Amino acid sequence: MINKKIIIQVMGLLLLIEGFFLGISSLVSLYYGEYDFLALILTSAICIFCGISFKLLTNKAEKNIGKRDGYIIVSLVWVIFSIFGALPFVISGAIPSYTDAFFETISGFTTTGASILNDIEAMPKGLLFWRSLTQWLGGMGIIVLSIAILPMLGIGGMQLFVAEVPGPTPDKIHPRVKETAKRLWGIYIIFTFAEVILLKIGGMSWFDAVNHSFTTMATGGYSTKQASIADPSFSPFIHYVIIVFMFLAGTNFTLSYFALHLKLGKVFKDEEFRYYLGFIILFTVAIAFALWHFEGYNPEKSFRDALFQVVSIITTTGYATADYLEWMPFVVVMIFALMFFGGSAGSTGGSIKIVRVTLLLKNSYQELKRIIHPNAIIPVRINDKSVPPQIISNILAFVVFYMLISIISTIIISALGYDLETSLGAVAATLGNIGPGIGSVGPVENYAHIPIFGKWFLSFLMLIGRLELFTVIVLFSPSFWKK
Amino acid sequence: MINKKIIIQVMGLLLLIEGFFLGISSLVSLYYGEYDFLALILTSAICIFCGISFKLLTNKAEKNIGKRDGYIIVSLVWVIFSIFGALPFVISGAIPSYTDAFFETISGFTTTGASILNDIEAMPKGLLFWRSLTQWLGGMGIIVLSIAILPMLGIGGMQLFVAEVPGPTPDKIHPRVKETAKRLWGIYIIFTFAEVILLKIGGMSWFDAVNHSFTTMATGGYSTKQASIADPSFSPFIHYVIIVFMFLAGTNFTLSYFALHLKLGKVFKDEEFRYYLGFIILFTVAIAFALWHFEGYNPEKSFRDALFQVVSIITTTGYATADYLEWMPFVVVMIFALMFFGGSAGSTGGSIKIVRVTLLLKNSYQELKRIIHPNAIIPVRINDKSVPPQIISNILAFVVFYMLISIISTIIISALGYDLETSLGAVAATLGNIGPGIGSVGPVENYAHIPIFGKWFLSFLMLIGRLELFTVIVLFSPSFWKK
Repeated sequence: MINKKIIIQVMGLLLLIEGFFLGISSLVSLYYGEYDFLALILTSAICIFCGISFKLLTNKAEKNIGKRDGYIIVSLVWVIFSIFGALPFVISGAIPSYTDAFFETISGFTTTGASILNDIEAMPKGLLFWRSLTQWLGGMGIIVLSIAILPMLGIGGMQLFVAEVPGPTPDKIHPRVKETAKRLWGIYIIFTFAEVILLKIGGMSWFDAVNHSFTTMATGGYSTKQASIADPSFSPFIHYVIIVFMFLAGTNFTLSYFALHLKLGKVFKDEEFRYYLGFIILFTVAIAFALWHFEGYNPEKSFRDALFQVVSIITTTGYATADYLEWMPFVVVMIFALMFFGGSAGSTGGSIKIVRVTLLLKNSYQELKRIIHPNAIIPVRINDKSVPPQIISNILAFVVFYMLISIISTIIISALGYDLETSLGAVAATLGNIGPGIGSVGPVENYAHIPIFGKWFLSFLMLIGRLELFTVIVLFSPSFWKK
Repeated sequence: MINKKIIIQVMGLLLLIEGFFLGISSLVSLYYGEYDFLALILTSAICIFCGISFKLLTNKAEKNIGKRDGYIIVSLVWVIFSIFGALPFVISGAIPSYTDAFFETISGFTTTGASILNDIEAMPKGLLFWRSLTQWLGGMGIIVLSIAILPMLGIGGMQLFVAEVPGPTPDKIHPRVKETAKRLWGIYIIFTFAEVILLKIGGMSWFDAVNHSFTTMATGGYSTKQASIADPSFSPFIHYVIIVFMFLAGTNFTLSYFALHLKLGKVFKDEEFRYYLGFIILFTVAIAFALWHFEGYNPEKSFRDALFQVVSIITTTGYATADYLEWMPFVVVMIFALMFFGGSAGSTGGSIKIVRVTLLLKNSYQELKRIIHPNAIIPVRINDKSVPPQIISNILAFVVFYMLISIISTIIISALGYDLETSLGAVAATLGNIGPGIGSVGPVENYAHIPIFGKWFLSFLMLIGRLELFTVIVLFSPSFWKK
């Protein structure tokens, strides 16, 4: 039985929250005295009105949220937020097409950062603030989702890899979730605040510093500049600050919690963290060497550009300090491969996730042993614990699903007339919640030229990518709706 | 304990066989009176001399062939055959570089069909015959390997999908293998013979008919024409004949055995066969529609070109009647995707194989059910039998390995200076034993321009792709050599 009332009630509550943040954005607009104030305050009012109506309509809802309700709520949250969140862009006339506005907004809430804007600097500041805020809120949502809710729903083997989470309780949301969420949000806010200060010190305006901090911590990647972080007004110091915070945003927030409590041993013992660090070092060294040796960059710039792009792509942020498509093909291929790694579990990063890639590599290696010793039981271990076979098969199924969706989607996008590189790039960059891809959706281009159908389709990819595929896809399975 | 003596003895025996077939090729050369006779007869003598020496050296070998010996023998066979088989090209001077000659030969024995020849028609006929024969022999080898030997070694879940095979007996090669091999080779030879006749009727010379029949049945794809089957002297009738035999070569030979015994029910009940047929129809319809509607081809040519290319790629033959890279990007992407399907288990086709793709799709669908009902046991079924979970995880591991190797190899090839499309294409086309890829290794181009390191690396990909990855890769695992 699906508890429709509680679903509507939760949506109502969330619309109130969205209305509140739209209200804040309207204040930003008011402060700068730009034309978007009315659109923002009007949408805020619409959200609050709908939120209250939903609440009143469902006053007598039972408080029980079942597992199925959970899937529906999670998927709906991102969709409803985007449907309403797109309104100010259309109402103000800043983005006349609703398709474009929806694309830009769901790209925000899913922390993707794929944009259709051809002239970001021309946008009024209130809307830019709201655009960055969609990412920051999306990041907040993802932290709770990945650390507290998805493990309970049993999605993609996440239940194993997140410390501090109560065991799977199929029927009720455990009160401890609230505690965990609060704690991790605290860290998220502290980091955001720290980044604002450092970016301000680096010479950014307060407005730019706040916006970039929002979108860094969410691994979103929306910038207030058309040239992203490559904007000439941003110094190397700013590049390094952003690298550090992208790195933090791509790290499991429970590890940051330990780090802030000075339990550094726990952090460096974490295998996912070590692989995360390892992949970053490996790719940075290879690319920095290529930039220095073949492109003739000086050593510092080679290192900085390589590190920035690697961290930006692996964490699925999608900022750019360089047009990586102009580098040698080898680097482009490396960057494309990185799009399938993703951040750590329990971070705001998207894509496949380091822990899954790690287990995949380990399992492949163990598989060789299993072939040689077919009767031996050879478990895969992570953090000194052996991973149950059903979790491994769950993760393998996740990765296979990810690849299948990538392939089918690439065919669909190519049917719109795009070449293999662009089709692959657009799919990898939206499904992985990265933003810029390769081909004609590279870091100095955007998604404006994609036809309407393509924009809706890529929006769908952002959604399923952000929600670990299964959360959304089960809704399309007939057996979900049976009985 | 590795039984070195028996390994050397088996190699000796196989070298005698290779010497025999080189001798036959030299007769072809003699008949046409070309300059390659000496090179062929000399290599034949070398093979026979080495073969006899190996045999004499290991007269007192124990007859026990263990599982580890099996892996070593299987991997060595393809390598040794190629090392010796490359000699006539070098000795005759037709292919001066040994790297090129080795590439061309292992591309033959692995039934890949990736060529480095820039002017096929200029080659003497004896060498062309030998080149086609390497594929035909490679195809013969693969039939025994996939139906009789690999299932015993427990590679990639093959044990399940091949009827008529005795259960896994880890220590000895079962006498029934001999029976099975003979029966299926009989079919292979009958089909080859039938194709020769039909191609001759279609207007080919005897020489062309024999060569093309050899390389069709092996799903190899070497042609005696630079333009492959697009050669203007080949009629549409020839195209259709080749389509039919490519299709047969990509079908499980045990099914052909049933069909020839008029048990057609068994054939059409086979799920792998139905998916094989289904994929071909699906892709052909989509591509034919695109050719007819967007490229302006007439309906028959749209259908024929689409069907030919689809069957050629899915069976991993690699013949071409058109430069598919000149078609719209959508078609190129479809063809690239097809490179990961492959023929049926127990056929001469390479790549991932239909049965694995089928089980992957089924398991993904079941995974959704498992998420909704986490405590239910939901097996994957094929041919009305449920597939044990360890076989499923074996297959998932195979596919993940295939993808990992593809990604890493693409990075390596791109480091030689190739763009993403060419790197992806070269890797997919060699690992999948197809031949022509996309980018600058497309159907009207070849592999001559790849640097030496790249040729050896791609040769290695052909080898591991042909031997179902694990057979070769276990040899690199330390635990294989332990104790």
